[in-house]
Amino acid sequence: MTHISDAPRAYSRTHADTFRQQLHEFLRIPSISADPAHAGDMQHAAEWLAADMRAAGLDNVAIMPTAGHPVVYGEWLGAGPDKPTVLVYGHYDVVPALMEDGWHTDPFEPVEKDGKIYARGATDDKGQLFIHAKALESYLKANGSAPVNVKLFIEGEEEVSSPNLVPFIKEHLDLLKADVCIISDTSMRSIEEPAILHSLRGMTYMEVEVDGPANDLHSGLWGGAAHNPALALAQIVAKLYNEDNTIAVPGFYDDVVPLTPDERAMIAKTDLSEDDYMASTGVPAVWGDAAFNIRERIAARPTLDINGMWSGWTGPGPKTIVPAKAGMKISSRLVGNQDPHQIFELVKRYIESIAPPTVKAEVRLLTTGKAALFPFDIPEMQAAARAYERGWGATPIFTRGGGSIPVVAEIADLMGIPVVMMGYGLDDDGLHSPNERFSVEMFHRGIETAIVYLEELAKLRS
Amino acid sequence: MTHISDAPRAYSRTHADTFRQQLHEFLRIPSISADPAHAGDMQHAAEWLAADMRAAGLDNVAIMPTAGHPVVYGEWLGAGPDKPTVLVYGHYDVVPALMEDGWHTDPFEPVEKDGKIYARGATDDKGQLFIHAKALESYLKANGSAPVNVKLFIEGEEEVSSPNLVPFIKEHLDLLKADVCIISDTSMRSIEEPAILHSLRGMTYMEVEVDGPANDLHSGLWGGAAHNPALALAQIVAKLYNEDNTIAVPGFYDDVVPLTPDERAMIAKTDLSEDDYMASTGVPAVWGDAAFNIRERIAARPTLDINGMWSGWTGPGPKTIVPAKAGMKISSRLVGNQDPHQIFELVKRYIESIAPPTVKAEVRLLTTGKAALFPFDIPEMQAAARAYERGWGATPIFTRGGGSIPVVAEIADLMGIPVVMMGYGLDDDGLHSPNERFSVEMFHRGIETAIVYLEELAKLRS
Repeated sequence: MTHISDAPRAYSRTHADTFRQQLHEFLRIPSISADPAHAGDMQHAAEWLAADMRAAGLDNVAIMPTAGHPVVYGEWLGAGPDKPTVLVYGHYDVVPALMEDGWHTDPFEPVEKDGKIYARGATDDKGQLFIHAKALESYLKANGSAPVNVKLFIEGEEEVSSPNLVPFIKEHLDLLKADVCIISDTSMRSIEEPAILHSLRGMTYMEVEVDGPANDLHSGLWGGAAHNPALALAQIVAKLYNEDNTIAVPGFYDDVVPLTPDERAMIAKTDLSEDDYMASTGVPAVWGDAAFNIRERIAARPTLDINGMWSGWTGPGPKTIVPAKAGMKISSRLVGNQDPHQIFELVKRYIESIAPPTVKAEVRLLTTGKAALFPFDIPEMQAAARAYERGWGATPIFTRGGGSIPVVAEIADLMGIPVVMMGYGLDDDGLHSPNERFSVEMFHRGIETAIVYLEELAKLRS
Repeated sequence: MTHISDAPRAYSRTHADTFRQQLHEFLRIPSISADPAHAGDMQHAAEWLAADMRAAGLDNVAIMPTAGHPVVYGEWLGAGPDKPTVLVYGHYDVVPALMEDGWHTDPFEPVEKDGKIYARGATDDKGQLFIHAKALESYLKANGSAPVNVKLFIEGEEEVSSPNLVPFIKEHLDLLKADVCIISDTSMRSIEEPAILHSLRGMTYMEVEVDGPANDLHSGLWGGAAHNPALALAQIVAKLYNEDNTIAVPGFYDDVVPLTPDERAMIAKTDLSEDDYMASTGVPAVWGDAAFNIRERIAARPTLDINGMWSGWTGPGPKTIVPAKAGMKISSRLVGNQDPHQIFELVKRYIESIAPPTVKAEVRLLTTGKAALFPFDIPEMQAAARAYERGWGATPIFTRGGGSIPVVAEIADLMGIPVVMMGYGLDDDGLHSPNERFSVEMFHRGIETAIVYLEELAKLRS
């Protein structure tokens, strides 16, 4: 039996080296959205990607401005109105990376070693979004057409929580109109266990500042009668958690939809052992709310983490000061139906209520993102499962993801379409960490799976 | 009545502008001992000072190596063996200073404004040590001789707790041999209330590191089952203090010599009001152990302060990680008879005992300094009081200092001589803070006081 995906799959194999060299080029651009110093690199990355889309044969390729970093858009609508339209979302921005964080090689000079591509953004998300660009290119080059209409919608602010994405979607609802959205920005446990995510956690990201003296004080002249802001911050932080490692902010869990026994049974099938968690992360012991298993804690339960903390002198040697201030970045991973803004208000009110009068404490909101949940028995999800069976060579599991991709809930809300999250990374790819990597084999199997998925989606309206 | 100090005092007045311009030159050299990047500036500062001493007429001026930054030494021994020998100790190194800390002008480009010299090191200690260099120069230029023998002993590592000073003193006991040591590296409350310090606090300076995951983790993929190292650090810090703001480390206060009712009565005469403390520091409220008044808390009681704290992402924007580690610098100001090494052991043992098994905690010793206490009815102290009356124009008080000058206890122990601390700064000079400053008037009154003190010391053996 022949398929219309056969020639594109063959094309993707014969062009595997070319695709990989192109990905290397893309990875060399340090498109760090959080750092204003890299604004030029962000523009460069957008232009590089637009040029690649044009070369692949996409139409109406454009770098579209936002209040922040631009969106890259391109489309191929030659399948006609009777065929489904697929919106592929991805992001070309990456999180910061410095050699001194522990990289073995330059994070922006990709190195292939033991079947992995090492570079910042390799798996999150340049490598994964590239899979879809190359799948569509394979159709257009091998067949001159694709079985469905495809729109590529690649943003540059995912790693700073997509502050300008909702206005962009609202303004371009017609342009982006589609029947299903595909996102490849997640991961699986092992290459033989591909996973389709049907749930993601939301996010409330905050910054806290505690102010004491007007300036740093000489600790010998003044120390002993000033509440050290770093001490005050630590005392506040220590009250964020209860003894049982649950979050102490009043009302924090009020809107959490409880897990049903059925869901818990499904999650238990893919639970992580303590040994696996320790081996993957390097922690000396597992921590958390003992009322939930590890997989539930990291994917189905809300969190409150300190992402950064600072005060006073952090350079070499001693400096004997009482610091003027201390601060931290904290963020909550949220689950349905927690509202990100409501969580901010609860945290802010609680911290202000426990801050002692000997310092001033301020809590600011940085970014938010909603949680998302989709049923997995709909045709678009089941078609994705068949695509993995044919294109990847393994049956996928449906699972919940612990991460947050702000656009997912927004696309579902604003466009009224399901979002299918087909992650082609591995759980231990080290995204957001030093030595981020992406499996070469999975890159190529991903392209074939994406090729087959377009064919499977076409069948839904044949 | 004429004095042998008359001509030198007159000389110091006619050369006031020159002395100040020389001080500006000295202050322009960013001699930051804590930062290896400034090693060249340290050498430059030492050479500049040695050249100034030679020009003033001192003999045997030398830049003497240590395992760290060098000592600058110079002497004038022309008074002969029948006259006392005075050892002047000071330091030419300064603490770090960056514009972004809140400086209004370049910390290493001195600016005179409203009668103050603004620059890092202006009061601590370049301006103050320079008083003695210029006092001796005034004698040698005006009279061709000084009434006592003088040795200038200026080190370059005071701000990093003088790690190489004790070996240096031990190795050069003959060279440094003297009858009394003078140090000007402290301050008074107001220009009309000069203070002679007879006590200083000691120091134990430590660094704490809490390690969790092997690398920063993606908080969405792994968050919820890893003990956040910043949270763990905060939980440890929160246990360093009791509810009443006393230090919770078992045994911490065991060796503190209790203040007698007489001492407390003397201290009460110079107590600070809450308003004064708040106005000087900018804190919103006074803090500390309510069993002691403010002056006792900042000068006669031990402390435990966080000097710096760090974890994870502190750059702009959000980064959603569970940090791999968190750390802090903490230091204790000690009072007699607390032993700095014993305090380190107590703090280390306590932190290790309260650190949870879900992280690894390590406590390292950075530096130590002993506390010091001298009687104030000895002739050298009383001669200093007379020098203030004649040279400064006000009667000094004898008081305890909250700071730590490691050399003080060491000189007393190793050389068996008293140390007279005649501080010419103001309590609110902002040392170790942005916009450090030094009063021009006090610089010149200090030189005259130092000139008179040498005469008063000569009288002790007339």
